Amino acid sequence: MTDTSRSPLAPPAFPDLPAVGGVELRVARARYKDWNRCDLTFATLAEGTTVAGVLTQSKCPSPEVEWCRKALTLGQARALIVNAGNSNAFTGQRGRAAVEAIAARTAGQLGCQPSNVFVASTGVIGVPLPIDKAEAGLDAAFTAQLCDWRAAAETIGTTDTYPKGATTSAIVDGRRVTLVGIIKGSGMIAPDMATMLGFVFTDAAVEAGFLQAALAAANAPSFSCITVDGDTSTSDTVLAFATGAAGNAPLVDDDSPGADAFRAALADLCHQLAMLVVRDGEGATKLIEIAVTGAESDRSAHRVAMSIANSPLVKTAIAGGDANWGRVVMAVGKAGEPAERDRLAIRFGETQVARGGLAVEEYDEAPVAAHLAGHEVEIGVDLGLGDGRATVWACDLTHGYISINADYRS
Amino acid sequence: MTDTSRSPLAPPAFPDLPAVGGVELRVARARYKDWNRCDLTFATLAEGTTVAGVLTQSKCPSPEVEWCRKALTLGQARALIVNAGNSNAFTGQRGRAAVEAIAARTAGQLGCQPSNVFVASTGVIGVPLPIDKAEAGLDAAFTAQLCDWRAAAETIGTTDTYPKGATTSAIVDGRRVTLVGIIKGSGMIAPDMATMLGFVFTDAAVEAGFLQAALAAANAPSFSCITVDGDTSTSDTVLAFATGAAGNAPLVDDDSPGADAFRAALADLCHQLAMLVVRDGEGATKLIEIAVTGAESDRSAHRVAMSIANSPLVKTAIAGGDANWGRVVMAVGKAGEPAERDRLAIRFGETQVARGGLAVEEYDEAPVAAHLAGHEVEIGVDLGLGDGRATVWACDLTHGYISINADYRS
Repeated sequence: MTDTSRSPLAPPAFPDLPAVGGVELRVARARYKDWNRCDLTFATLAEGTTVAGVLTQSKCPSPEVEWCRKALTLGQARALIVNAGNSNAFTGQRGRAAVEAIAARTAGQLGCQPSNVFVASTGVIGVPLPIDKAEAGLDAAFTAQLCDWRAAAETIGTTDTYPKGATTSAIVDGRRVTLVGIIKGSGMIAPDMATMLGFVFTDAAVEAGFLQAALAAANAPSFSCITVDGDTSTSDTVLAFATGAAGNAPLVDDDSPGADAFRAALADLCHQLAMLVVRDGEGATKLIEIAVTGAESDRSAHRVAMSIANSPLVKTAIAGGDANWGRVVMAVGKAGEPAERDRLAIRFGETQVARGGLAVEEYDEAPVAAHLAGHEVEIGVDLGLGDGRATVWACDLTHGYISINADYRS
Repeated sequence: MTDTSRSPLAPPAFPDLPAVGGVELRVARARYKDWNRCDLTFATLAEGTTVAGVLTQSKCPSPEVEWCRKALTLGQARALIVNAGNSNAFTGQRGRAAVEAIAARTAGQLGCQPSNVFVASTGVIGVPLPIDKAEAGLDAAFTAQLCDWRAAAETIGTTDTYPKGATTSAIVDGRRVTLVGIIKGSGMIAPDMATMLGFVFTDAAVEAGFLQAALAAANAPSFSCITVDGDTSTSDTVLAFATGAAGNAPLVDDDSPGADAFRAALADLCHQLAMLVVRDGEGATKLIEIAVTGAESDRSAHRVAMSIANSPLVKTAIAGGDANWGRVVMAVGKAGEPAERDRLAIRFGETQVARGGLAVEEYDEAPVAAHLAGHEVEIGVDLGLGDGRATVWACDLTHGYISINADYRS
């Protein structure tokens, strides 16, 4: 973490996270930037570990994203390397060479195929990742002491103001399986795809195809439903690794015993992780939950919710504690989705503020102002058209966001 | 104007604007807010004046927008009323009744049909325009002294930091015709439709159908190519009035003598007015011109340009004078339009910074930093795919935007 001012929305402490059988963590200093911290994370994974992933849909992805996309087709993982301080995106052949060098060196260390090594990087765009620093960092990591989840979560962070991790468990095939995730991200966070760098580890035995299906399903209502600034990274990556150390009969499809429990646990973990990211939105002082109902479809509801969540005028109003519901009307109106002004209803928290195309007669702003004074704000919009619904999460837009981003790279 | 700090991008002075035959201007105090300024503008238009308009595509439009949309089908205008301080949007039947009352009272004064009276309002959303104040304001306006363009331009403004007007002329049918426009707007300014409140007056004789076609054509590369915050108003309205006082043979279609000259003049005027708005973007310190070339189509180029123009990370980088072209890559990648990372080229001002998917070898940041230190910044992006091109204009995102919008309504 380079930023010392912790988000006011941060959880009180990093949680106690259990070990996950088959996963070993180490961190080291590659010195990608001139800073006094670890910035390379090395996770080794037991033989037989399966992997799934969801990756940015950017048309300008990093070579790491391309590498992972290709490696995911094989579904097997032995290691994860995460570089912080340099995203290596938009760096041409030199960037691709750096990823290949990292995979080759790690594969040599572990005696596996390079395609079993997954690589993710985060930081400034446009500067090739220096291979010499990466290799020196790897060598240090190979011989480092084992570390805990907190150290790994800290090491993958950049502008994050706190390390982010979560856990859950499920009973599968009569055995308790553990899931742990770590994640980083607080700016360039946007909807409609896997977002940020997030890593989920489980000791469950899960075939790669089913793990991919479960991860994609868990991604849709979690990472794809948060936004900090509507800006989509070139490097967004969420990977899930299943080591099989729990010894359950492998999950192969929805009919496998415990498949539902595993899916539910993975979805819960992804939701926890997504909330940790939006709570660390750059400059955020308020977490905003936007629930849209009554849309013509769930997809339409999602788009309306994201139009609200990404509106600078809505986000600044919430920052100012201003119950300016007219800006919510504006954001609904501009979303390009089916909407009828005179059926629209809006609430802040539990208080209905508008209904049937105008302010409610008995509207009392006092409870709304009290709701907006808190750290967690709920906006509810009912379009009155159908059964479509969606919930998304965002944060407010403050002077802090400007301060962080008007002078980040320099 | 309620804001006393003038945009650093403002033109040095309000221009000298000529009278337009057939147009009379008056302003008055309706006291829509508790302020010491005129807030109702009344323009009377000679008999036979034709009218055209482009209006917001918001699904939650104001009753004024609905009124104008209907009245435009008749193509005849005798008066324009503009209310500042209350947009009257999302106010149900009471809002509609206010517009009808204004049109009826004005029609009674002038002895015309209510459908010849055009009404626009700007300000807070959700509060019905008080009919008593509107009627008292109208009565004061009916008997007020004639005023000049500057007074009218000031009276239609809200958070604008300077009054906005422009003029041009053309030779039509052997006669010089004059065009004058006034406009307001600095926040809730977004692409893909008529934006803000803008009013164009000409003494040319122009049939309504041709005026509409010429205005729609002029709107596309001007008002539809600017963005301050990506937020689309419920009340955006641009109306053009042609009084015919110049005495030319009426323009009826593209084959009419002078039609090309008139179209060009109208396009020039709309461009001038659009630039005045983006230069007064809330909190703006820099005008950003974004030119995208090499796209698969003009429409695709426009979408990529708007993705850059609306990216908070690009806008904050420009605010900070940071040549962070990686954020331009990000915004291209997220646009959802055809793009190939390894064909992408980016320039700031005249300096090429990236080409073929990576930074140029000889890249020298000094001239870029000098360019970014100015008030006018150019970003050029070539996608290397086809002949599609578009240019849009935006402003930077600063602490000023947050300050203005985190506490506007209260």
